[in-house]
Amino acid sequence: MHRTAGIVIIGNEILSGKVQDANSPFLCTELRALGVEVQKISAIADDPELIAREVREFSERFDLVFTTGGVGPTHDDMTIEGIARGFGTRVVRHPRLQEMIEGYYKGDVKEAHLKMAEVPEGCELIEGEQLWVPVMVYRNVYIFPGIPEILRQKFETIKERFREAPFFLRKVYVMEGESAIAELLHDLLKKFPELMLGSYPVINLSEYKVMLTLESRNEAYLEQALKRLLETLPARSVVRVD
Amino acid sequence: MHRTAGIVIIGNEILSGKVQDANSPFLCTELRALGVEVQKISAIADDPELIAREVREFSERFDLVFTTGGVGPTHDDMTIEGIARGFGTRVVRHPRLQEMIEGYYKGDVKEAHLKMAEVPEGCELIEGEQLWVPVMVYRNVYIFPGIPEILRQKFETIKERFREAPFFLRKVYVMEGESAIAELLHDLLKKFPELMLGSYPVINLSEYKVMLTLESRNEAYLEQALKRLLETLPARSVVRVD
Repeated sequence: MHRTAGIVIIGNEILSGKVQDANSPFLCTELRALGVEVQKISAIADDPELIAREVREFSERFDLVFTTGGVGPTHDDMTIEGIARGFGTRVVRHPRLQEMIEGYYKGDVKEAHLKMAEVPEGCELIEGEQLWVPVMVYRNVYIFPGIPEILRQKFETIKERFREAPFFLRKVYVMEGESAIAELLHDLLKKFPELMLGSYPVINLSEYKVMLTLESRNEAYLEQALKRLLETLPARSVVRVD
Repeated sequence: MHRTAGIVIIGNEILSGKVQDANSPFLCTELRALGVEVQKISAIADDPELIAREVREFSERFDLVFTTGGVGPTHDDMTIEGIARGFGTRVVRHPRLQEMIEGYYKGDVKEAHLKMAEVPEGCELIEGEQLWVPVMVYRNVYIFPGIPEILRQKFETIKERFREAPFFLRKVYVMEGESAIAELLHDLLKKFPELMLGSYPVINLSEYKVMLTLESRNEAYLEQALKRLLETLPARSVVRVD
């Protein structure tokens, strides 16, 4: 079985519309390219009890969990406390992080700086040459910051550990509406029950009316399904195949 | 008490990174401006059982629920079935929708077209002059399509029914890092425990290092908190106040 993933976006700023979440689209695209199936995304508030519940549930349901946000030094950074609470463990200062922070700030270390050394007890660190701050992993939960540039750098450093058998994808753009092709898509799935088939209508576009996506981890199966689809679609309705 | 909301984004295309969700940022921004507090967003797959569970839970936890996606005529449109299942009701054809669809397609109505007339039994319709298709509401669940243009048109038509006492928002941009101001933010919250205070660092920007957001439904309280904050921030660290 291939690994599944869930993403927990933590931050009031997303829910109140002040900041648009750029991290879950990034993670979804990257994980898909690695062959990992993201099954759920939740965006929740900066509240330790909500974080505890959500991360614990995700950790049980999915092989991999990615959290983003809530790991800075201020009052609204609740992710570490929330994860610790979710697994019934304590928040402790990680000696390696403390050492790094004290080394950086020299004699000028404040309590707020040392908040950044806090982890759920038992948390592992993954260091990387490109990284100023290591990636924190607690069990199957990868704890990322909310700042997109740093998240990306951290993800790039560790992403090879997530690689699975890839998904193969073909896209077919058609000039028919969804209602006109719904039945033949249904029939296609009867013949190819393992096919992942998506149908995405657009409006106000002159190039096409529906984008069909066909996916499988089995490339030969995918190509057979594509061949069958192209045979059954109305003549001249196919605009493009990618 | 003011109303809360939850948003359920339905669609494999979001989870697999093929399509970026533009609907939840739109709804979050609009609902915030209306004074409604969005407390959670979930993005889930096209699966009736998952839809059933998520929508049912959201319906119990939040005053208003908005679903997006999964309401077209094809095999991967599972939202109506999922919602019906979540509330233990049946999927039925709504006579008013059936009439509209038959009127539109005249003698050329297909089964796939009539799938668009299906609703959870007991579903209400809200019609609007601007709308070709009415908005479906089942209990406190507003069922929206995934196509952003249509979702927006539908939301605009009905949004006044969601208006609450507004949130007042001030933003303070500062040239200090988060660690340097964490303590004074903490103290500010001790004095103004009802203040909604956010701290959002950026990197690679020369204009400022942190954006602070102060919010309240009580404008005088907000202005007092802002005054206090500006008095306590280090001299010359405030770049701008909006």
